[in-house]
Amino acid sequence: MRKEKIEELKQYENELKTIKKELLLNSDKKFITSRCYKCTLNNGKSINREQIIKSGKDGSAVIVAPKLKEKDEFLVVIEPRVFTEKTIAVSFPAGYIENNESPLTAALRELREETGYMPQKILHLDEFYQDEGASKALNHSFLALNCEKKFNQQLDESEIIRYMSLTYDELLELENMKYLTGSNSKLTLCRIKKYLK
Amino acid sequence: MRKEKIEELKQYENELKTIKKELLLNSDKKFITSRCYKCTLNNGKSINREQIIKSGKDGSAVIVAPKLKEKDEFLVVIEPRVFTEKTIAVSFPAGYIENNESPLTAALRELREETGYMPQKILHLDEFYQDEGASKALNHSFLALNCEKKFNQQLDESEIIRYMSLTYDELLELENMKYLTGSNSKLTLCRIKKYLK
Repeated sequence: MRKEKIEELKQYENELKTIKKELLLNSDKKFITSRCYKCTLNNGKSINREQIIKSGKDGSAVIVAPKLKEKDEFLVVIEPRVFTEKTIAVSFPAGYIENNESPLTAALRELREETGYMPQKILHLDEFYQDEGASKALNHSFLALNCEKKFNQQLDESEIIRYMSLTYDELLELENMKYLTGSNSKLTLCRIKKYLK
Repeated sequence: MRKEKIEELKQYENELKTIKKELLLNSDKKFITSRCYKCTLNNGKSINREQIIKSGKDGSAVIVAPKLKEKDEFLVVIEPRVFTEKTIAVSFPAGYIENNESPLTAALRELREETGYMPQKILHLDEFYQDEGASKALNHSFLALNCEKKFNQQLDESEIIRYMSLTYDELLELENMKYLTGSNSKLTLCRIKKYLK
């Protein structure tokens, strides 16, 4: 890993790590709720299963691996991930699909909002259920090619996102160093391997 | 894909598919709940984040790819997955880690309970957060080698699990046919590739 890249990452880590976590006993706005269904199977048996609901929706998301036009590197984002061991994580740009949005539209929107970059070409890599026993969330992964900076970052009030560019081998190093730890990004890292020069 | 294997899978699909799904408005036992935390970052900013809780725990799970001793095939399980498009799915044996259990102990227990098979050797493949923005669930994947049938299947009342053995290439076919659709199994399938003869 290049020394300046490690220093950049450590700086974001220092800035974004959680130093205090306080349980709110009476949270009025619930992002995560659940629904319980009684399901009848074709063999006549009944089972109850609960579904994770995120902000009233099924929680389907998109993940985009953005490859730069100017050099052989990928963009990753660094965010507070308060429930992980490091309390921050490196991942590919990602986010929830909004109402009436196609996965492709959501992928381009999330990439633009989180980094300001836009691709010349985008490929659908895969789709996968995030937690198939307890959620309807079907996530879609994409490879965005020839990305260039076109816009400013555009974040929600609750989002704090830094980004940086790294080679594929450096991403594998970050995986080994447990900075890149989420299943979405790990699976996307597997899928883009065959597209590398 | 071998004809008899497709027929076996179609028979399980027919048996286990959901034919009716009824929302229970007053479910007394909640498997899925959430906790909201106010988190203070090192840069002084505060953010609220909600955590998915499953049965009072963080939801960490294990996934085991069991390779048979007698032939060059892997065991997979077929279960009702009522929130997926097919309402059933093929996956590697998996389950939640119980209190005071190590990931390895949980992996051997889940393999034994779901299939009755035990390995001569087991390798830790990877660990990954299932949903790092909203959950502390850290899943561990394993490759179990030289598996042999030693016990009967031992399931909870709410579990309905069939199992069958398939070659690695057949598993890739099931991935393309969207029977193997969960991120846990897909990522494990990536990880075992380098261990194939």
